[in-house]
Amino acid sequence: MRLRNKKWADTWLTNHDELVITQDRATGLQGNWMNIFAQEAPIHIEVGTGKGQFIIGMAKKYPDINFIGMEIQESAIAVAARKADEDEAELPNLKFIYGDGAGVETYFSKGEVSKVYLNFSDPWPKNKHETRRLTYKSFLAGYKSILPAGGDLAFKTDNRGLFEYSLYSFANFGIKFDPKGISLNLHEDTEKMEDNIETEYEEKFSSAGFPIYQFLGHFE
Amino acid sequence: MRLRNKKWADTWLTNHDELVITQDRATGLQGNWMNIFAQEAPIHIEVGTGKGQFIIGMAKKYPDINFIGMEIQESAIAVAARKADEDEAELPNLKFIYGDGAGVETYFSKGEVSKVYLNFSDPWPKNKHETRRLTYKSFLAGYKSILPAGGDLAFKTDNRGLFEYSLYSFANFGIKFDPKGISLNLHEDTEKMEDNIETEYEEKFSSAGFPIYQFLGHFE
Ligand SMILES: C[S@@+](CC[C@H](N)C(=O)[O-])C[C@H]1O[C@@H](n2cnc3c(N)ncnc32)[C@H](O)[C@@H]1O
Ligand SMILES: C[S@@+](CC[C@H](N)C(=O)[O-])C[C@H]1O[C@@H](n2cnc3c(N)ncnc32)[C@H](O)[C@@H]1O
Repeated sequence: MRLRNKKWADTWLTNHDELVITQDRATGLQGNWMNIFAQEAPIHIEVGTGKGQFIIGMAKKYPDINFIGMEIQESAIAVAARKADEDEAELPNLKFIYGDGAGVETYFSKGEVSKVYLNFSDPWPKNKHETRRLTYKSFLAGYKSILPAGGDLAFKTDNRGLFEYSLYSFANFGIKFDPKGISLNLHEDTEKMEDNIETEYEEKFSSAGFPIYQFLGHFE
Repeated sequence: MRLRNKKWADTWLTNHDELVITQDRATGLQGNWMNIFAQEAPIHIEVGTGKGQFIIGMAKKYPDINFIGMEIQESAIAVAARKADEDEAELPNLKFIYGDGAGVETYFSKGEVSKVYLNFSDPWPKNKHETRRLTYKSFLAGYKSILPAGGDLAFKTDNRGLFEYSLYSFANFGIKFDPKGISLNLHEDTEKMEDNIETEYEEKFSSAGFPIYQFLGHFE
């Protein structure tokens, strides 16, 4: 997803640096994220948060979890953070990192994050771009380095090729699959849908009739 | 799949004991399957071979491989073996075992089989029947015990629930996923379809418009 540049984004982000933390500042916070949040609670992050619908929905639904949406695109993170800021609900349990998911091990220390969400990550369908996929093994190594043993990974996508690839990548990295952790048509699974918070992409693709794939697993 | 009893099956099988080996005889052949075939060649087996369309097709397409179709239902194995027997092609590289896939480790010694095929295995959708699925961990342990290190496992099904479950079971057993080893719509993958031999169930479900799922992987 490429958003058009938002002229207001740069200034807005500078003016909201308690809500949106830049990559450089994130690095300085490694090991100290608890100080940033109003409450001591497990931290769940989403890498590639886009316009933020999912992470805002999660922050509302689970006030006892601290959430961080991470996004590399300035205009997307600005839209996401402004949406959170303008929301009628106070969300002291939600922050954003304007930064690259490739750097997670520099933002967090081992075990500081307890769950990583990936939603509708860019598919990079060409073989030669494999290393850019957020489910490529170097990214998985990053997530592993910030999660505790047993830390969770959750992934949703509409993209068949990316899902096929990611299952291969997860299994061969040694990620354990949760029982009933794979859904090849999430929206037909009423039990799972009770807990499901839709992302922007999910809303778009599922309403167009495409199946949504989900993976739930954990690192060892 | 439950076939109606075939009255001729019992006698026919007794009269073709060079083609169809009973479970008891198979146990006596452990470590000596090479003597059964006309040629020394790798052995590939299919567990739950049904009416045999796949294994007969494979035996024709790959004369340099020795194939064994294994089936627990008398009427099914009789139909499969008779089809092979009546085929215009001589198939010295094809045998059948009338027996239970749960016993593979008693029929073969370690490394005697180089590839295991599972096609459209009975789904056993209820949780309490998990142990009957041919992709349950006790069955996987059986396949592992007859394959060499790196030995292949190939699985196709139309059944979404069974496929979701089986990926979980494979990954958590430590089976490695082959690169591009997962297809969530095999019949749309032209490259893979070039090598594909359809089973009876596959023909039925794919022509009815259902996606066919495939897994290719290997034991360590
Ligand atoms: C296809 S969009 C999906 C957005 C949202 N998760 C959804 O499901 O609607 C993927 C997002 O991931 C972001 N992204 C891609 N690579 C990233 C990286 N290395 N680090 C952080 N964000 C990334 C993109 O900028 C884009 O906003
Ligand atoms: C649904 S049919 C599929 C047949 C064929 N493979 C196809 O794809 O058309 C499953 C077959 O597996 C056989 N089967 C089930 N459990 C078995 C076991 N434990 N050992 C051997 N065969 C088994 C059944 O008898 C049945 O013929």
